[in-house]
Amino acid sequence: MKKILFLLSISLWLISCNQKPEKPIDNNKLSSEEKIDSTNIKTLFNSALTNGKSYEWLRDLTSNIGSRLSGSEGAAKSVIWGKNLMKEVGLDSVWLQPVMVPHWVRGEKEIATYTTNGVQKNVPICALGFSVATPKSGVLAEVIEVKSIEEAKTLGAKMEGKIVFFNRPFDDKLINTFKAYGGCVDQRVNGAAVCGEFGAKGVIVRSMTNSIDDYPHTGTMNYGNLAEEKYIPTAAISSRAANILSDDLKENPTLKFYFKQSCQTLPDAPSFNVVGEIKGSETPENIMVVGGHLDSWDLGDGAHDDGTGIVQSLEVAYLFKKNNIKPKNTLRVIFFMNEENGTRGAKKYAELAKLNKENHIGGLESDAGGHTPRGFSIDANSSNTKLLQSWKKLLSPYGLHDLDKGGSGADIGPLKDENVTLVGYRPDSQRYFDYHHTSIDTFDKVNKRELELGSASMASILYLMDKYLYSNSPVKP
Amino acid sequence: MKKILFLLSISLWLISCNQKPEKPIDNNKLSSEEKIDSTNIKTLFNSALTNGKSYEWLRDLTSNIGSRLSGSEGAAKSVIWGKNLMKEVGLDSVWLQPVMVPHWVRGEKEIATYTTNGVQKNVPICALGFSVATPKSGVLAEVIEVKSIEEAKTLGAKMEGKIVFFNRPFDDKLINTFKAYGGCVDQRVNGAAVCGEFGAKGVIVRSMTNSIDDYPHTGTMNYGNLAEEKYIPTAAISSRAANILSDDLKENPTLKFYFKQSCQTLPDAPSFNVVGEIKGSETPENIMVVGGHLDSWDLGDGAHDDGTGIVQSLEVAYLFKKNNIKPKNTLRVIFFMNEENGTRGAKKYAELAKLNKENHIGGLESDAGGHTPRGFSIDANSSNTKLLQSWKKLLSPYGLHDLDKGGSGADIGPLKDENVTLVGYRPDSQRYFDYHHTSIDTFDKVNKRELELGSASMASILYLMDKYLYSNSPVKP
Repeated sequence: MKKILFLLSISLWLISCNQKPEKPIDNNKLSSEEKIDSTNIKTLFNSALTNGKSYEWLRDLTSNIGSRLSGSEGAAKSVIWGKNLMKEVGLDSVWLQPVMVPHWVRGEKEIATYTTNGVQKNVPICALGFSVATPKSGVLAEVIEVKSIEEAKTLGAKMEGKIVFFNRPFDDKLINTFKAYGGCVDQRVNGAAVCGEFGAKGVIVRSMTNSIDDYPHTGTMNYGNLAEEKYIPTAAISSRAANILSDDLKENPTLKFYFKQSCQTLPDAPSFNVVGEIKGSETPENIMVVGGHLDSWDLGDGAHDDGTGIVQSLEVAYLFKKNNIKPKNTLRVIFFMNEENGTRGAKKYAELAKLNKENHIGGLESDAGGHTPRGFSIDANSSNTKLLQSWKKLLSPYGLHDLDKGGSGADIGPLKDENVTLVGYRPDSQRYFDYHHTSIDTFDKVNKRELELGSASMASILYLMDKYLYSNSPVKP
Repeated sequence: MKKILFLLSISLWLISCNQKPEKPIDNNKLSSEEKIDSTNIKTLFNSALTNGKSYEWLRDLTSNIGSRLSGSEGAAKSVIWGKNLMKEVGLDSVWLQPVMVPHWVRGEKEIATYTTNGVQKNVPICALGFSVATPKSGVLAEVIEVKSIEEAKTLGAKMEGKIVFFNRPFDDKLINTFKAYGGCVDQRVNGAAVCGEFGAKGVIVRSMTNSIDDYPHTGTMNYGNLAEEKYIPTAAISSRAANILSDDLKENPTLKFYFKQSCQTLPDAPSFNVVGEIKGSETPENIMVVGGHLDSWDLGDGAHDDGTGIVQSLEVAYLFKKNNIKPKNTLRVIFFMNEENGTRGAKKYAELAKLNKENHIGGLESDAGGHTPRGFSIDANSSNTKLLQSWKKLLSPYGLHDLDKGGSGADIGPLKDENVTLVGYRPDSQRYFDYHHTSIDTFDKVNKRELELGSASMASILYLMDKYLYSNSPVKP
């Protein structure tokens, strides 16, 4: 009897597993054209999940090349890697687009420390991109903590000779962590420009993350219109160190913080965007781009930022070819160079597109990590926005529910025009800022299926854009 | 000029960050009652994300107690831990519900190996729950590979003296990995019962996972109606080892596989469900339950399965109390014992509920991991299913789009009745089977925000169920 009860309970539980719904689309609710689309989208997902290449490509990029900061040896190697890989996938043509990029180098590992109540504390720190070095002996000064650029400005001359500590944390209440990032990153980008003007000796910034941990997050900054002789060194400290320092300052407001860094900006270096395309079968003069950025910060391996975007973009073309989906418009895959500190590759691409009178009708960028798909953000005129939103019933069975108006991405952004439909791929954002711009943005943080689902999501919306924006396009055959 | 261009590009990129929409609900589309609900749900999310306790509770449970297999010392400790924690949260009453549970122990670490082409290969292996041991000297036999229970049955007497190797992998094309699990797990549960009947010497099963890695996944099995003298030992091998063994068998079909395990089933042991409740303010005789299971497999720390469900369930009550949301019906938090191998706690709870003529109106279970929220699965009559689905506009701003009919969970399932609305929390499933029932189901795999968003998601639907199922309930004040 016990056995029978047990068997029954196992069956019940198996049924409960099986009942978790796969959510097939109700075919009766689809037009005949939509049925074809639904089938093709299913094919793209099946193909990505069973024969996807992106995960092994990413493993190769991150383990055999690693970090790829503009101007670095890693960046140069990744250009060759990208070109060879595009050829291997069999794109109709592959070329390199020369672009001069900033060349900032970190130098020796940074040091930061302070002593309070007789206890010396070492602080996880990293210089911000474009920061100048400290003097060789480092910077030692009292610390003023502020929560915003505005607060810093009100300090004025009080900050002379001091280190200003920007410590406004992410707003954890925001569901989308990119919004929290957007609400804080001005401290990192503009802090040194503001405080340099008033004679501060340096700026340290709380790392841009929701997580409380020991990893400093680097990222770009700039000195704005500050006179060069007023440039001051600036760095990020880990979120946990920021909390501890803030507490220590309450108890001991005159403690002296020390940090040392030897970074420098070298002359601009030659580099390349890597571009490949599948020629359009009907209107090859119309171009749709899909891309991410090949460069990364120097601390980790640039796995989520933006190795995933690179391999997903190429996988879109691979999935089209593998499943014999021939785009009507030309599909161009772009590995942009220098998104992180300058977006020179993006600007060069848009500049040449204009110069060569190329007709771009759409673009898709993946630069928000390789986590589980949630949807897309649409930057288009209102009729095309509505068109894309009408595809929700085809996309939602794959977890793609978000089809809101919003930005696309820093690399395709310069192509913006009334008639160009730009789309940003939007995976789940919860884990992204755990790794962003740190030493732990590494391959092991990427889940194979999440990555592949992203490739398939991107391929699906591009398949629809190719089919329907085409007939919607101002340039017709 | 360069600087100005650079500043422009930074601004553009900041705008693009800020444009990622937070998706506020359009208040004009809500009724006045829905506006109140929307505000309360926002409060629950804000509270979980800024003052949540679940992550630290989970750290405590997983690091200070660890695994909690029924009948083990860890399980006993976790009962006390759970009772104390419920009291600490300030539930109106907390009690233990005695239940006898199976007591299976793994014994020494299992060994598996075989030699092919002169090369000895060690195989990551673990016994399945309820399996008998091998003889002390182990089992050595030729291997027959099959892909299904049906295929095994057709072998009949051919499997006598052999080890049968079940090697049907997950269907990677299924988006929901639970569905893939449901389509494979019969091999693990029933393989030994079928092959024991025909005199096989043992059964090895490919681990239940999408991932190709080196971790064997344990889990429950049963011998069904097999006579006890025909019981044969059964174990899981890692997915990578399964692939390699399958290849080796093609080349060398007569290779001999060896494995040894010393697990045994001891007499049933005394244990407890841990139960606590907040008394309903209007109809305390109506009960809504929220729970997960306190027991876990013995290999990891039971972080995702089901530590997350436990701490999220208690956090629901914590969030209600913290935000002064007084449930009209009694809200009962249950840490069920023995979900993994027997669901005795669930049966005992349902049995006593019936015996005591308790009126359950709803239940929510979290036993699908602590990943980013996707929605809920609803097991209710059609009018209540529609009612719950009508809350989509309130829930979707938090990524909760899935509100499909389906199973709820193994622990609340026995409460099923025409008038009881049962709901399963459904987080994203992509990473779950990377860890499920393995040594790597540990705290570091859980993301704090994803966990907290889950607690808030659960609290939100329970808030709505409490408010609206109440007026919908057959028992009225």
